[in-house]
Amino acid sequence: MAGKSVPVSPLAPKKVPKMPAIEGVAFATAEAGIRYKGRTDVLLARFSKGTAMAGVFTRSKCPSAPVDWCRSILPGGRAAGLVVNSGNANAFTGLKGREAVALTAKIAAKALGCKPEDVALASTGVIGEPLDATKFEGVLADCATRVNPTAFMDAARAIMTTDTFPKVATRKAKIDGIPVTLSGIAKGAGMIAPDMATMLSFVFTDATIAPSALQALLSKGVKDSFNAVTVDSDTSTSDTLLLFATGAAAARGQMEVPDAKDRRLVGFKRALNALLLDLAVQVARDGEGARKLISIAVEGATSARSAKKIALSIANSPLVKTAVAGEDANWGRIVMAVGKAGEPADRDRISIRFGDIRVAHEGARDPSYSEAATTEYMKRDVIDITVSLGIGRGKSRVYTCDLTKAYVEINGDYRS
Amino acid sequence: MAGKSVPVSPLAPKKVPKMPAIEGVAFATAEAGIRYKGRTDVLLARFSKGTAMAGVFTRSKCPSAPVDWCRSILPGGRAAGLVVNSGNANAFTGLKGREAVALTAKIAAKALGCKPEDVALASTGVIGEPLDATKFEGVLADCATRVNPTAFMDAARAIMTTDTFPKVATRKAKIDGIPVTLSGIAKGAGMIAPDMATMLSFVFTDATIAPSALQALLSKGVKDSFNAVTVDSDTSTSDTLLLFATGAAAARGQMEVPDAKDRRLVGFKRALNALLLDLAVQVARDGEGARKLISIAVEGATSARSAKKIALSIANSPLVKTAVAGEDANWGRIVMAVGKAGEPADRDRISIRFGDIRVAHEGARDPSYSEAATTEYMKRDVIDITVSLGIGRGKSRVYTCDLTKAYVEINGDYRS
Repeated sequence: MAGKSVPVSPLAPKKVPKMPAIEGVAFATAEAGIRYKGRTDVLLARFSKGTAMAGVFTRSKCPSAPVDWCRSILPGGRAAGLVVNSGNANAFTGLKGREAVALTAKIAAKALGCKPEDVALASTGVIGEPLDATKFEGVLADCATRVNPTAFMDAARAIMTTDTFPKVATRKAKIDGIPVTLSGIAKGAGMIAPDMATMLSFVFTDATIAPSALQALLSKGVKDSFNAVTVDSDTSTSDTLLLFATGAAAARGQMEVPDAKDRRLVGFKRALNALLLDLAVQVARDGEGARKLISIAVEGATSARSAKKIALSIANSPLVKTAVAGEDANWGRIVMAVGKAGEPADRDRISIRFGDIRVAHEGARDPSYSEAATTEYMKRDVIDITVSLGIGRGKSRVYTCDLTKAYVEINGDYRS
Repeated sequence: MAGKSVPVSPLAPKKVPKMPAIEGVAFATAEAGIRYKGRTDVLLARFSKGTAMAGVFTRSKCPSAPVDWCRSILPGGRAAGLVVNSGNANAFTGLKGREAVALTAKIAAKALGCKPEDVALASTGVIGEPLDATKFEGVLADCATRVNPTAFMDAARAIMTTDTFPKVATRKAKIDGIPVTLSGIAKGAGMIAPDMATMLSFVFTDATIAPSALQALLSKGVKDSFNAVTVDSDTSTSDTLLLFATGAAAARGQMEVPDAKDRRLVGFKRALNALLLDLAVQVARDGEGARKLISIAVEGATSARSAKKIALSIANSPLVKTAVAGEDANWGRIVMAVGKAGEPADRDRISIRFGDIRVAHEGARDPSYSEAATTEYMKRDVIDITVSLGIGRGKSRVYTCDLTKAYVEINGDYRS
């Protein structure tokens, strides 16, 4: 966390992609001194005129003020800018929180030359402390003078809290033969659980797609990506995923696509889903204190919904997660987590695999179980767990990380 | 865990009650060498003829073989004996597990001179390893020759796994003016979550109460006791709570009570509920790695059910539990946990207290909030958190413990 030197997660991607600019998007970051010292903590993004916006937010009954704000402007379907700050979530801040949001949008609108309701907002950090939005005065105006289309890494860094590495991803696609690009950033390391993960993510594309179609693509896309990632089962008040489409590709002949089901969007949809999964898995890879990425597949369930519920029950089990941290192939705890999910399961038909090693079969330890082989497997960075229920065709995959002493340490004094 | 010297939980009760004998119940323990070395791991209890039995079990979809066994004999409503072993849960052991249960009951029946279906069984420990019931051969016969009515502490010790102290409690009551006694033991330290907590508990009384009435009292009694305790949200495959009524008080003139709603049972019910709560809170006090007991009251919810769901959402939140471990009054995380419960809540009406200190009021930090006073409060052993939702009259209280590095350590190598 801030002020301490935290080593980068051993699960951080080995290679950071070269992030291509998205025509119609430019960024600047600054040190507004919201909470952290000696690092950037505010991001301003400027969008070209007519940029379409879609958003998905936390389902928390206690959403933050910026989430309320974004929900209120989303029906407009367009955005001219985005302001994100780290260090203070502006959540559970009552009337002051609403005032802070209004003031931030006003300052940003002045800097960008747009209306306040054209500015999307997001905040991440401590809950319950009033956010002093006057700190954005001057800062955002200055940012607006130096926005840069290639500053993705700076943008990803400015929104970090307990993250140990900036998260970026990019994909290319074609719509009706015209090449388009998608590039995104994300943050999130703790208070991560669907729906959604505690995280912020912003994705940008130069495609021209109608806001309603964009929204449909995004709402569907989170299902197997951000909504399939959990670090600690704690859904945040602030989760925000926004997708902006500048429409710059129109100049290269891409016609606006009005409907998410349009066949011309097949490639774009695939690229978007891959990008969202890439970012979401990076969030799990940077789970607080994580030393291992755990991928959990449940198959043979009565439905996909049921499979996902069981997969999340496993992914959120502290006992499963501590066992993986201890490199212990304690599959009995996986049985426990299947059992506690409350979903249809027949104890005597369950099989469990770690990687390719079948450890349990039809309700009992696999006759050929080898402790040595399994123990060797558990030393890996990425642990694949597959549970076959054998009672249906529903399947689902979710991602999480192990639960280590470092998680407890990080979260035992986050505020101090 | 076994083999390591673990210090007793700092939350262990300062005084252990003197446990009065229950007429009609006697115990013996032994070292069967199931898993642990140099400690007792099997408990035999013998009951006088006609002892009534009631039981409540895990709701896991993957229950252990002994849970299946107890469920199958429960309709008989009577028991002549009880065998409990620690070290191996006999769960997810398939056909072998069923055979082990049948063999254990057969060996015990022979030792006690009863039918196998008169013997209740429970096992706790590692999941997925076959239980070698032949180890009970000889051991139970020997136990039967030396049962002792006052060996409660020995009984409580023999059923421990990662527990750091034996758990016992006793209460007195009157039925129709005749004094009766209730005495119970419990174990459970991890894999503890309603419904039920991962735990075993056995309660004995000399009262004479019809099995159906006994069952009704027990089913109701767990609601605010064992089903209101969570250590890590992980419901076990093996949770078993059994209540045995020997009926010895009949000799002193207590007439059998046929119905749980009978007014004569008011005092007994109160004593039973107090006993169950006492044992359940001891389980939370011995939560793996626990340094603080957390009592969470939710009031002003739309219903008691809704209040309990919110209370459990707080109690199971790793972020709330790590904050308490770090003595950090991070009430923002409590807001988060209220929000993620999915139950009705109005963010702008929520108040939160730590002990008597109101930290948040009507959706924002309390204007008179004192970080110093709250920080001082957080140093205590027992942390009381009250959340007032202000939208109804439903209330509930649950108990949990903090999440420490020791929890991760204990569970990172339980099997090794």
